[in-house]
Amino acid sequence: MSGVSDERVTAAVLVIGDEILSGRTQDTNTRDIARYLSVIGVDLAETRTVPDVLEEIVAALNALRERYDYVVTTGGIGPTHDDITADAVAAAFGVELHEHPDILAMMEARWGGELTPARRRMARVPVGGDLVKNPVQGPPGFTIGNVFTLAGVPSIMRGMLEDVGPRMRGGRPTVSRTVRVEGSGEGVIAAPLEAVAKAHPDMSLGSYPFFGADGYGSNLVVRGRDTEVLGAVVIELIAALKGAGIENVREIEAA
Amino acid sequence: MSGVSDERVTAAVLVIGDEILSGRTQDTNTRDIARYLSVIGVDLAETRTVPDVLEEIVAALNALRERYDYVVTTGGIGPTHDDITADAVAAAFGVELHEHPDILAMMEARWGGELTPARRRMARVPVGGDLVKNPVQGPPGFTIGNVFTLAGVPSIMRGMLEDVGPRMRGGRPTVSRTVRVEGSGEGVIAAPLEAVAKAHPDMSLGSYPFFGADGYGSNLVVRGRDTEVLGAVVIELIAALKGAGIENVREIEAA
Repeated sequence: MSGVSDERVTAAVLVIGDEILSGRTQDTNTRDIARYLSVIGVDLAETRTVPDVLEEIVAALNALRERYDYVVTTGGIGPTHDDITADAVAAAFGVELHEHPDILAMMEARWGGELTPARRRMARVPVGGDLVKNPVQGPPGFTIGNVFTLAGVPSIMRGMLEDVGPRMRGGRPTVSRTVRVEGSGEGVIAAPLEAVAKAHPDMSLGSYPFFGADGYGSNLVVRGRDTEVLGAVVIELIAALKGAGIENVREIEAA
Repeated sequence: MSGVSDERVTAAVLVIGDEILSGRTQDTNTRDIARYLSVIGVDLAETRTVPDVLEEIVAALNALRERYDYVVTTGGIGPTHDDITADAVAAAFGVELHEHPDILAMMEARWGGELTPARRRMARVPVGGDLVKNPVQGPPGFTIGNVFTLAGVPSIMRGMLEDVGPRMRGGRPTVSRTVRVEGSGEGVIAAPLEAVAKAHPDMSLGSYPFFGADGYGSNLVVRGRDTEVLGAVVIELIAALKGAGIENVREIEAA
């Protein structure tokens, strides 16, 4: 966050996706975003869900971005034909889309010659937008103006959120540190993580699992307002994980 | 339903409550309503969540009831000071609230002389409104114009819904089938999926990726109103996926 103030800072969530409106998928991103914002002192003031229809997304986005300090969108940034969130954000801001060179470079490093048109769709970002880091897997999100566009898959969305908070002008700032576990899944991480979380209700502890050709595990992000307490909780968390028989644990630079 | 037609019938859900926006409570009512409406052939077209603030509820309600055939609200009809949904609905329709004699009679039968002012709040209904039966516990909901005002407690909300459907003019219900792809990501699924989607514009084809320690892939949901066409599209989709070299494809029971 770029500053601390007593002024109320507001945000809206815009969920994009037919699968939510059909009732097929239970949205949990709204609650995760609400909790995340609450810790950094930003009030979630309204949420909307709209279908995968360009005009609907544009209209909702323009209404919300005018009214609130920030808008966080989830969903519709994958490679399929119904993933039109990037098109809608660009249209709302009246700019073109371009293939972001950093995303293309990431994709080429991973897939080489297999850069299908579907995958290239995920490299499209509104001109003037910046990237939002994706510490989990797949391409990044992006931000333009006061809008942050994140993935719809909950674990990826939560991971991307870690790169959103620091860019918001929050009520009160938080600091975070990241502990990386490799070779253990959330099934075994959950118990020690929850024990430490319960002992420190004023801290936020999140688990962002990753899974891919290069292995699996989870990045555990500890966030709070007090740097000293944060340091103590990180030590406690590493000890609790090792006490549960999880060996491959280390602190890393935040992704 | 009072009739079946080919015309699209639309609805919106308006969730009312600070507890959703703070992240303290996970909303599940939206999904339950979405599923209920989908079966009776009403399309959920938009959802909003607003705080317990009169002007916000009124503004959202007026925007939604003008735009869609029906609006279903949940939350804010209990006995406490922040339960102001009845006030907001009355204000939106420009009518007064009155204590509905049927609700007062139910309350007197149950509580007799213990009819506290807090309980009497729950008897207030906009003038001209009808009751929505509550088969679970507590006072009924109400309906006025094209708005249905239901409880926020999920089990009570679901019970009240049973008295909502029969009052809606439904379209035709949609049916869906699900094709599961394992071991292939959306990057390779997208092209055959899009080809089939484009060939059948009156069907809805969605891709819902999953990944975890036990593998990754995507559930492809085909949705439409005509069972025969649906069956043909599922066969076509499976053929298209296999034609693109994707081997691990099968139809599954819808989640």
